Amino acid sequence: MILVNGRPSDSIHTSDRGLHYGDGVFETVAVENGAALALEEHLLRLQAGARALGFPDPDTAQILNEVDSLISPDQRAVMKIVLTRGRGGRGYRPPAIDDTVPSRIISLHEWPEYDPDMYEQGIVLGLCKTRLSQNPALAGIKHLNRLEQVLARNEWRDSSVFEGLMLDNDGDIIEGTMSNLFLIVDGVLLTPSLDSCGIHGIVRKLVMDIAAELEINCRVTRLGLEDIEKASEVFICNSLLGLCHVRTYQNHSYDPPVLCPQLREGLIKQQKIASL
Amino acid sequence: MILVNGRPSDSIHTSDRGLHYGDGVFETVAVENGAALALEEHLLRLQAGARALGFPDPDTAQILNEVDSLISPDQRAVMKIVLTRGRGGRGYRPPAIDDTVPSRIISLHEWPEYDPDMYEQGIVLGLCKTRLSQNPALAGIKHLNRLEQVLARNEWRDSSVFEGLMLDNDGDIIEGTMSNLFLIVDGVLLTPSLDSCGIHGIVRKLVMDIAAELEINCRVTRLGLEDIEKASEVFICNSLLGLCHVRTYQNHSYDPPVLCPQLREGLIKQQKIASL
Repeated sequence: MILVNGRPSDSIHTSDRGLHYGDGVFETVAVENGAALALEEHLLRLQAGARALGFPDPDTAQILNEVDSLISPDQRAVMKIVLTRGRGGRGYRPPAIDDTVPSRIISLHEWPEYDPDMYEQGIVLGLCKTRLSQNPALAGIKHLNRLEQVLARNEWRDSSVFEGLMLDNDGDIIEGTMSNLFLIVDGVLLTPSLDSCGIHGIVRKLVMDIAAELEINCRVTRLGLEDIEKASEVFICNSLLGLCHVRTYQNHSYDPPVLCPQLREGLIKQQKIASL
Repeated sequence: MILVNGRPSDSIHTSDRGLHYGDGVFETVAVENGAALALEEHLLRLQAGARALGFPDPDTAQILNEVDSLISPDQRAVMKIVLTRGRGGRGYRPPAIDDTVPSRIISLHEWPEYDPDMYEQGIVLGLCKTRLSQNPALAGIKHLNRLEQVLARNEWRDSSVFEGLMLDNDGDIIEGTMSNLFLIVDGVLLTPSLDSCGIHGIVRKLVMDIAAELEINCRVTRLGLEDIEKASEVFICNSLLGLCHVRTYQNHSYDPPVLCPQLREGLIKQQKIASL
């Protein structure tokens, strides 16, 4: 179930710049009941990332067609869309934008088997040693340079720890290895600023939007480890798990969440995240 | 002229972690008169990079065989060796090291057509806006996360500018987009410390070694833009061009070089860099 530039294939050319330089962007999309959730938001982010790297705009109609052709009715799956700068010679210099022929890899994968109690009980959050390096030119983009996440995720094998918190070089909290993070401190919803590093998560944005609709005060700000310890509630989010509260972070335990289930319920009703 | 895991092929599997995360390392080797120059040094760095990322040790004998099989007598070419963590499922978490089956892509490419006057006249060095982000966990490694170099190299199309200087977030000089850098200040050979970012170039190390043999004082240190302006001589180095002095940096011109040709001559004699 893989389309490479629209054709069924399971291989790409060895000269692809996605392989050589991580020169590309990607999206991970939840598919539920045969529908790709928040697909418009994902394709807008894909376009924004492609523009930031100097690719020509992706052909959204073409991608939509290919996405449709892969999904069966009632399917539950994970769809990954990868867009690279395409084939290239040796050397960092990219072709001029008019000569760029991006590669498009769209694949379907099994839905991850989350513990069914996860949303009731919350997850265990660890702290990663691997830091996120800061570069405003790349911050926010879901690009293919993901070695920091790989090294961070390789720090633990204990399956009871679901996610690891990553800090930047200043010690500020940024995100999890595969999720964004929200804290509730004094009734205010807080999420780290991603001006220097981190990924602008689709669900992060949806959470901020629905918080505004529900008149919940929300702020994007610098956050440190002291904030996570004084938070009354902490939750992580991404396009697959939706929202899930943190039960324990290091030695710190949290009371049952109030806001997280409410926001999650709202986004499920809007059909933006999977209902599980 | 491409071997993928030892077999002639021009494709890799779409699930390769090299593509999805830049989860791999690479080497670029000069081939002259049918010999891969400084190959032992390159394979040692490949091994060090693989270890740093948690790969099993590459099979050096196997790579040497494959390298030999690709090169014809008297050939002049560029050889690229890419080693990734191999195929994987979706998700950052790498397989356990014992379950890791790396992908090996060895390819031959045309020798770059340098201007024959380049070593006489020196090159023009520009200054890139794109900064190098700092992460000691990845510093020095020639890994496949190279978007910063791609963005930096995309800043100019003027072919009279040969290389662009890159700074880190602190404004320290680190390297060029595709080369390391040396300055001569008050008769001392200086090269930037790469503790936080940058690539530990093979020729950079060879230059330091031969400088020691020639009893030229050499220091690895923090360097800023003020240092490049007060230098009597500046040169860049990498495995393809060897060493080449800088004629102008921004509005700054340099006198004909003294040390660079001497060091270059020495490394050519040792058959560590191409004689052009």
